[in-house]
Amino acid sequence: MTETGPFLRQMRATAPLVHNITNFVAMNIMANVLLSAGASPAMVHAREEVAEFAGLAQALTLNIGTLDPAWAEAMEIAACTMDVAGRPWVLDPVGVGATRFRQEVCARLLALRPTVIRGNASEILALAGLGGQGRGADAADPVAAAETAARDLARRTGAVVAVSGPVDFVTDGTSAYRVSNGHALMPRVTALGCSLNGVIAAFLVGQDRLGATVAALAYFGLAGERAAQGAAGPGSFQTAFLDALHALTPEDLRRGARVVPA
Amino acid sequence: MTETGPFLRQMRATAPLVHNITNFVAMNIMANVLLSAGASPAMVHAREEVAEFAGLAQALTLNIGTLDPAWAEAMEIAACTMDVAGRPWVLDPVGVGATRFRQEVCARLLALRPTVIRGNASEILALAGLGGQGRGADAADPVAAAETAARDLARRTGAVVAVSGPVDFVTDGTSAYRVSNGHALMPRVTALGCSLNGVIAAFLVGQDRLGATVAALAYFGLAGERAAQGAAGPGSFQTAFLDALHALTPEDLRRGARVVPA
Amino acid sequence: MTETGPFLRQMRATAPLVHNITNFVAMNIMANVLLSAGASPAMVHAREEVAEFAGLAQALTLNIGTLDPAWAEAMEIAACTMDVAGRPWVLDPVGVGATRFRQEVCARLLALRPTVIRGNASEILALAGLGGQGRGADAADPVAAAETAARDLARRTGAVVAVSGPVDFVTDGTSAYRVSNGHALMPRVTALGCSLNGVIAAFLVGQDRLGATVAALAYFGLAGERAAQGAAGPGSFQTAFLDALHALTPEDLRRGARVVPA
Repeated sequence: MTETGPFLRQMRATAPLVHNITNFVAMNIMANVLLSAGASPAMVHAREEVAEFAGLAQALTLNIGTLDPAWAEAMEIAACTMDVAGRPWVLDPVGVGATRFRQEVCARLLALRPTVIRGNASEILALAGLGGQGRGADAADPVAAAETAARDLARRTGAVVAVSGPVDFVTDGTSAYRVSNGHALMPRVTALGCSLNGVIAAFLVGQDRLGATVAALAYFGLAGERAAQGAAGPGSFQTAFLDALHALTPEDLRRGARVVPA
Repeated sequence: MTETGPFLRQMRATAPLVHNITNFVAMNIMANVLLSAGASPAMVHAREEVAEFAGLAQALTLNIGTLDPAWAEAMEIAACTMDVAGRPWVLDPVGVGATRFRQEVCARLLALRPTVIRGNASEILALAGLGGQGRGADAADPVAAAETAARDLARRTGAVVAVSGPVDFVTDGTSAYRVSNGHALMPRVTALGCSLNGVIAAFLVGQDRLGATVAALAYFGLAGERAAQGAAGPGSFQTAFLDALHALTPEDLRRGARVVPA
Repeated sequence: MTETGPFLRQMRATAPLVHNITNFVAMNIMANVLLSAGASPAMVHAREEVAEFAGLAQALTLNIGTLDPAWAEAMEIAACTMDVAGRPWVLDPVGVGATRFRQEVCARLLALRPTVIRGNASEILALAGLGGQGRGADAADPVAAAETAARDLARRTGAVVAVSGPVDFVTDGTSAYRVSNGHALMPRVTALGCSLNGVIAAFLVGQDRLGATVAALAYFGLAGERAAQGAAGPGSFQTAFLDALHALTPEDLRRGARVVPA
């Protein structure tokens, strides 16, 4: 299961079309992350076409960062389409603890059976109904505080749950892994977490979902480590990060992934 | 007609205000592309002001990437304003083959007489009513497959039609040119095609539309070639591409443009 | 008052959560500017949650760049929340002179007592009811032409008014300062002015508003100067600008700020 390289190789061979309904901050960088990784991104949200478009996509990501009711409705339609078709989708409950509106929308989306839920510790705690102190996209809680909540949420929803942080925690409710790839500059670039959702979705296409999620996190974090070499700050880091996503090979990932059972 | 340098010189002297109603992925990079090229971008879409604003602009671009009905209505109002005023506008039918909604909106926009239509081969085929296999912003069809469709579409609509690809094909229905500037990293950066619409629109102001379109494509592709020198991947390529748009002179373009009659 | 370093030190110690309702072009770069500077950005706009979220934020920015009526309503709700709570908010009246819709929205927002109003000379002139020749985000008028309008606007609204340009002018209606930090490449990168609003808002938290505004402008301009060293054009400048925002220390700012009473 800690084999990661083959998941990257398979994703690139598939070059999946990933449909994203995400926030306005993330749109551009998320598309660039997916292109650099080797997948094909598309952003479509209108009620008039979202189901038809989701029908063409191989995976879907939903992110509630800059939510409004019309977008929430589009998200439900798209998730429903994927659920019915048996295709994977990823939920990012950005800032779910911050407002009642986000909690209500997330409750509706959870019922549509996400394949993977990825958030920071505060978001996973809030989603699991345990509180959490997040504000916006920041995590006020450490990853370790959300492990029990993540396992519970995974069992209750049937999703793989990934808690992002300095060391990520990933579980399907039974097995669990820690992924320690990454770099401190990553949270200094906006929407990298949102962009990671797309990479996870791309890895999920036709692959085991727990293994694909772990491999995607290791790949993303390893690209961050490479990018940090020689970066002078968040600006040059972001540029180098896209280059690293593009350059990393399955063999690099096999050597560089730091994944252990939890 | 294969003179390209004077079109760039004239565009920079005019520094036209280009009004763009485009998708959320493209907004930022498109504005930066226009600023780096020497034009002045503005993004305005509300029904309450779009006609008034279009009245101030020297050219317009419409892009249906992240469409919804309210934005489609704004596009119609803005295109109508430009048509009545005799000012140029560019249509980018992103993913028109993917959904019925896109086809309906594009049919309405075509009736408002775009000056230039730019898309990939799949989009031009779909717009011409000949099928096309595109998904999202990707082209599944080669440029050559769309040449007849491009000529037909140009004759039928009165627009210059540009088919983007490794070698671009541009026609007004009578004459046609191939532009072979460009680099393989360009489709690995999101929304560069969308951004090109803005450059075409800026070149169109006060200039011959077939010549301006060809010159804009050569300029854009040549900037890509310059940017690729020394780029380590899509991230550093994007950075260098904006620098190259800014640095290229009319004399550089005259020397570097690769344009031949088709 | 021309002490600037302590304002930067205090902002970083606070790392304030800044709530932004801004335009689609600015969303990503503004979030990255705030993260690089040391603050925490959030973008939230739905009527269903905007008051609740504003209640969590320490400062707010409003920017009318890509306005529509629903966003205007969200802006009013958020500004009202900040006004009632006595927390600072910044207004950027982008292109206010261009359309009646913008003038009407700005009139409503002015009544909600912004802490700081920042714009280019054309925008400040238009907001003060004196005309102005702006088109989109460009300034057609020189800063000097807007100084009297800025003083009048400050006295009438109770806001600090900052006029951006090659030399910025900042006044609370009584005192005034000129800040001459900056670089000619800054207006060649889109939405840097919009992003500056966020930095001003972050500096305002718990600090004197005239001093905080001046310090934020000097910090931002100084980062531009640093970034321009070695930049090959607008692309590499933008990358280096984020790095410089991150790297600049309070001591760098103390030495590099060029602020004089007006």
